[in-house]
Amino acid sequence: MAVIAIVGAGMMGSALSFPASENGHEVRLVGTPLDRQIIDHAIITGEHLTLKRRLPPSVQYYEIEQLEDTLSGANVLISGVSSFGVDWFSQLVIPLLPVGLPVLSVTKGMMNADGGALMTYPAYYTEQHPGKSLCINSIGGPCTSYELADHDQTEVCFCGEDIVILRKLRALMETTYYHISLSTDVIGVECAVAIKNAYALGVTLAIGLSERREGAGCKEHYNSQAALFAQSIREMSRFLNLVGGGGDNIVWAAGDLYVTVFGGRTRKIGILLGRGLSYDQAIAELRGITLESVVITKRMAQALRTRIQSGTANEHDFPLILHIDDVISKGYDVNISWDRFRQG
Amino acid sequence: MAVIAIVGAGMMGSALSFPASENGHEVRLVGTPLDRQIIDHAIITGEHLTLKRRLPPSVQYYEIEQLEDTLSGANVLISGVSSFGVDWFSQLVIPLLPVGLPVLSVTKGMMNADGGALMTYPAYYTEQHPGKSLCINSIGGPCTSYELADHDQTEVCFCGEDIVILRKLRALMETTYYHISLSTDVIGVECAVAIKNAYALGVTLAIGLSERREGAGCKEHYNSQAALFAQSIREMSRFLNLVGGGGDNIVWAAGDLYVTVFGGRTRKIGILLGRGLSYDQAIAELRGITLESVVITKRMAQALRTRIQSGTANEHDFPLILHIDDVISKGYDVNISWDRFRQG
Repeated sequence: MAVIAIVGAGMMGSALSFPASENGHEVRLVGTPLDRQIIDHAIITGEHLTLKRRLPPSVQYYEIEQLEDTLSGANVLISGVSSFGVDWFSQLVIPLLPVGLPVLSVTKGMMNADGGALMTYPAYYTEQHPGKSLCINSIGGPCTSYELADHDQTEVCFCGEDIVILRKLRALMETTYYHISLSTDVIGVECAVAIKNAYALGVTLAIGLSERREGAGCKEHYNSQAALFAQSIREMSRFLNLVGGGGDNIVWAAGDLYVTVFGGRTRKIGILLGRGLSYDQAIAELRGITLESVVITKRMAQALRTRIQSGTANEHDFPLILHIDDVISKGYDVNISWDRFRQG
Repeated sequence: MAVIAIVGAGMMGSALSFPASENGHEVRLVGTPLDRQIIDHAIITGEHLTLKRRLPPSVQYYEIEQLEDTLSGANVLISGVSSFGVDWFSQLVIPLLPVGLPVLSVTKGMMNADGGALMTYPAYYTEQHPGKSLCINSIGGPCTSYELADHDQTEVCFCGEDIVILRKLRALMETTYYHISLSTDVIGVECAVAIKNAYALGVTLAIGLSERREGAGCKEHYNSQAALFAQSIREMSRFLNLVGGGGDNIVWAAGDLYVTVFGGRTRKIGILLGRGLSYDQAIAELRGITLESVVITKRMAQALRTRIQSGTANEHDFPLILHIDDVISKGYDVNISWDRFRQG
């Protein structure tokens, strides 16, 4: 059996303690400085504060000050930080990693790079630590933490550069309910699961637009959602192609889009914007929380606008995402150009 | 302005009277022998019995006996029959068509042909009338009739062999809410929008499986639905490739899958089967109605099994649809092989 350290005791990192523990591994769950309440509460009660589940009894809890101890003897480190914790992880955790320790990251998102490129977080970590040999792998695919903790059937994809390492990670983590595909197309998988957040916001605009006409909480309308869903698939396929990711990754983008449309704050902000609130008003309703969907929309749009200017992308191929960015970044009212989705 | 005859006064055929009338065309709505009540009711009240909407006031209503008169001077004939009316349409309507009259068909589905091939309905009509010059075009894409009648934003695809005819049809029918893409990839579009019905049944099995554990009407679970949605995209892409349809048609399949998961009898039977009812029990709950999703599942599986036997398809590429067919055709209990969806 292996020793698996999870750094970041948020919901997804913590939910991964279920398959890891149930496979008989020693799980060391290490809170970030933001997770102290979660760790303290779990030590006393065995329960996770935000996941609202009892974690497996064998999980061991640590504060961030104990990080070096928890890394001693670890066979793999799972990074449970969100995209807002990437720099913290890079600056404070990566320098402590033993040489060769494989990392498995749940963080979804991409960073802007020169010339309209987008960079994966694994590539960013590697760039930040030029002298260090890193082995960063990532988890993509449609998986909500609650349902993983509840042992619902779940299909994800582990991606990384070394298929041998990926197979070892799968052997450690796969269970009868947590099914793991493998891919060495890191840019493809990472891009697919990052940009789907932007498009989930896009699809849910249609719900808000219906509510604008018929009042909040009205019956859902599906033709318009499906039109946005179809256009999302089109634009995501084109964008995957632009960044050099394989077209088959549209499967991860579509599956993840499907699950993201149904819940959480991305759905909420999409509905609010569709209903007619300005971006500032919508964010105020969400109490100022910055959303990953908003971050990736801006980054994707920035990358696209750079490419459009240099002639390496066509704005007519991305009317939906560019409009979502106009709504978010320039305060535009939602006004979908449905006829621009037409083909042929 | 043109004269548009709609044969088949079901919900979708009748809903198309909205864009057609609003573009100023003369609309002649002709009931099939099954539509007498609908036509009689509409003549008296102006309302459509099953669509439960007042149709545009300029629509003219006809019984099937008046078919020849309504075709006189018509510029296009819209076929509003379901897949169960295909043979009726072929035998009774097509012989009456004036030479060169373009047909626009709403019928979704495919027929089995030799060697594991599937045939579109336009190809079937042409085969049935070897001496007659036909111009059959079809409508694909995510569109529920209620929402079209309510002027919701809707994106569909008209497909046919002649792009010039398709452009004319679009010019007749496009409105500010009914947006029309065009494609000459008939097999691709027709296959995409037919097989999505089978996979909508597949995705909704997950809802029933949750209800089997937690009771009917329990909270929806999304990881498992998303896993089936992603596998549906995989299998639909592979199947499009098998039948020679372009890969970009996955957009129509995915958009239409998204809308079909949410409603109607396909969702209902998927949930009942997932819950543990046998196919016979589920059909009994649905009062014996034959569903298009069931028909296309059987046809697709039959085509695949023929190809698997002849070595031109691999059963490992289609575990989901073959299992759905086992449930329907052999009375198997639903038992998803989640691990067979794994890649890499």
